[in-house]
Parts: sequence; structure tokens; C-alpha cells
Amino acid sequence: MKIGILGTGVVGQTIAEKLAQLEHQVMMGTRDKQTTLAKTGKDNFGRPAVSEWLKNNSKIQLGTYSESASFGEFLVNATSGMVSLDALKVAGENNIGNKVLLDISNPLDFSKGMPPTLTVCNTDSLAEQIQRTFPKSKVVKSLNTLTAMLMVNPGLLPEPTNIFMNGNDSGAKAEVKKLLMSFGWNDNDIIDMGDISTARGTEQILPIWIRLWGTLQTPMFNFKIVVGGK
Amino acid sequence: MKIGILGTGVVGQTIAEKLAQLEHQVMMGTRDKQTTLAKTGKDNFGRPAVSEWLKNNSKIQLGTYSESASFGEFLVNATSGMVSLDALKVAGENNIGNKVLLDISNPLDFSKGMPPTLTVCNTDSLAEQIQRTFPKSKVVKSLNTLTAMLMVNPGLLPEPTNIFMNGNDSGAKAEVKKLLMSFGWNDNDIIDMGDISTARGTEQILPIWIRLWGTLQTPMFNFKIVVGGK
Repeated sequence: MKIGILGTGVVGQTIAEKLAQLEHQVMMGTRDKQTTLAKTGKDNFGRPAVSEWLKNNSKIQLGTYSESASFGEFLVNATSGMVSLDALKVAGENNIGNKVLLDISNPLDFSKGMPPTLTVCNTDSLAEQIQRTFPKSKVVKSLNTLTAMLMVNPGLLPEPTNIFMNGNDSGAKAEVKKLLMSFGWNDNDIIDMGDISTARGTEQILPIWIRLWGTLQTPMFNFKIVVGGK
Repeated sequence: MKIGILGTGVVGQTIAEKLAQLEHQVMMGTRDKQTTLAKTGKDNFGRPAVSEWLKNNSKIQLGTYSESASFGEFLVNATSGMVSLDALKVAGENNIGNKVLLDISNPLDFSKGMPPTLTVCNTDSLAEQIQRTFPKSKVVKSLNTLTAMLMVNPGLLPEPTNIFMNGNDSGAKAEVKKLLMSFGWNDNDIIDMGDISTARGTEQILPIWIRLWGTLQTPMFNFKIVVGGK
């Protein structure tokens, strides 16, 4: 499958690597290729600069947001939540069209220090804002509730955990589910919560996720929903 | 221990029953005893009216909010989040004093239908509002992230799950932890997330809890934080 990934940060890189391993054709999109390629050194997560990283991932292409959105039959939003709507507008409504858009972003505002606050919550969500802004697209929220390495390697945890899906289009959710299963997620561990408004629930898990990260001193954790009793 | 529980709903009743079983002296507090005692039939959760329930729980006393707060050496806020601050004001700052106040309430607004929204979130929490309103009290948020029956019977689930604690006073958190352990929670499964502001995280888990309740068609579930990998 030809997949366009918006965003070149740790989430975009991690998803791109996995998709390339799975033999998909991947184009990552960035706002300004020259600026992105001019970066040197490691980022805050200890990852190499994009130009270095591309040398080790030669099958992955780099394009602009609009080139990436045009290239992909299936799109992934891996930009920071605060800039997602703008990035998608730059990518272009015509390029996004009626494609499936897997939205991994979180509306976190780090500008006032740690812990971040949410730029939208409670009565709305970033996923809904994206769906409203691009009404023809098929937005599916998923993977936003855990650290990038675990998104594509759920088996790194000692037992199966859960991942959530929110979206209006059942065909699009079936496509995303298939992709998640190719990443290693079990069918039964993927919880379809319903329409896109249920993303209010998954996005609002971030405030506890962030604090658990501090308490546990590692981002390598995930939620497991244990059901039982009578 | 003498324990005052504000609120006579399903949470208040469930906690009161457990505490009475554990040989604590319990007084439940309500806004207006006559109104509460005049209720008949079953509530929305299929529980008997308070007057019926008291006949089967004869060791548990019923008082006003202020009588209950005065009676207890340790207090529990089991009122609906939307009325918690008002109920605590009626209970009286002098009666609350510098006691430990276990806050189980959730700031859920059901007035606009399902799913409810939060009356406070993101940059504040109900637990913080209570702590600010009663600065001498030692507010500890806990137990608000699961259904009442599981609060006092975590072993009903097929495997250990997690419970969170938020509060500024470490002595108060130690007292609450001891109580939680007497309810059946394992030491290692109680996660102390830090000061009372971390309640923003646990209160904002409710939007996903509510939706999971709908998806799973049962409230008998809880979150387990699975940690691992390198």
C-alpha cells in the first residue's frame, strides 16, 4: 500500500520504519523539506536527525505535506496535535480527499511547561475537529494512547494490552484494524469504541498517561482493560 | 475508626457496608434526613431505598452532612461531583477541620444527557477545588476510577488491576492506602501519582470509562497498567 505520513518526529519515524519493514511504500511529509533536512544532531528522544535517519531508511521518501498526502492511498497524521489542523490544511483538502486518515496526534500544549494541558477536551476532540475540517476524509483515531515504540511493538510488554479505535466509518476502521494487526496487535485487544466523538475519551487519557510516565519513570507501559465479575 | 461518609447513593452505601463489615463505626450524611428517609422503591442502580437499606445495615447511622462530618475522624466524599462542594460547605469547615478526606467523587454533568461531560478538567480538577476550599483538610483522591462494587471487591476481577491516589499529604495517603488494602487492594497495585493536581489525570479517565462501560456493556472492569520492555 502507498502510505503518506504527515510528521517526521519520533511517531512519524517509528511508524514509517514499521510500514517500510512491512513492504509498504512510504512517503513522509514535512512542512519544509529544506528546513527538515538541514537539522543535525539528535532530537529530544535521542533519535538522529531526519537526514541521517533517511540514509538508514533508504526506502522511505521525504516530501512536503501535500506531496505526501497526494502520494498516499492511506494517510497517517503523526504531527504534534497543536499543529495538526494547520499541517492537514497545508497538505490540502483535495490531496486528502476521501482517504482513510489514521490520526495518532494528541492535542497537547507543552508551551506552558510540564505537564502539558490539552488544547481541546471534554465537549470536543482534535479527532472531531479534523473530521469536521475534512468532512470527506475517513478519520480513525488510534495509537495515540501509548509511546511510539509500543505502537508498532506491542509484544515488548509482558502481556497483551489494549488499543482503542474511534471513527465514523466502519470500512475505514476495518482497514486500520488490519494495519494494527500487522503491527502485532491481537484482534481481541483492539477496542472499537464507536464514532469519532468517542475520541474525547481516548484523548483525555493523555493527562493520566503523562503523569504515569513521571511516576513509573518509563514510557514503556500501556493500559489493559480487565473485564470480569458478574 | 469513626468514619463519616457524605452521600447516600450507590457509592456511599457500598463503602459504608464494607466499612461496617470491617468493624468501623459509620455515619452516612445526607442533606435532609427526612427527604432521604421518605424515598421508596429502588434507585437507578436497583438498590433499595435508604430507609429499607438501613434496616438491613443496622450498625450504620444516618445523619446530616454536618453530623456525619462531625462524627467522623476520617471522612469520605461520596456525593455526586456536581454537588460535592456545596455538600462539603453544608457539612461545615469546622467539622471537616484537618481530617483526611477521601474524595471518590467525579465531576460529571449528566444534565445534558449521555455521555456526561466534566464540569471541571484539564487545568483544574474537583479534588483541587475541594482542597482549595478546605485548605486545612487533607484531601486524597482515590477509588473514583471504577464502579462501586469493585472499589470494595477488587478480587471480583480475574486479575489484579490498579487504583490511583492523588494528594498533598503523605500521611493522609498512607491512611488511605491502609484502608484500600483492607478493602482487598494489593500494596503494589496502588499507584501514588503525586500531589492533588495529579487528580486531573484520574478524573479525566472518566470520559473513557463511561464509553468503555457502553462498549463492554458492563461496569465490571478496571484499568491495569502493564509496564515492561526496555
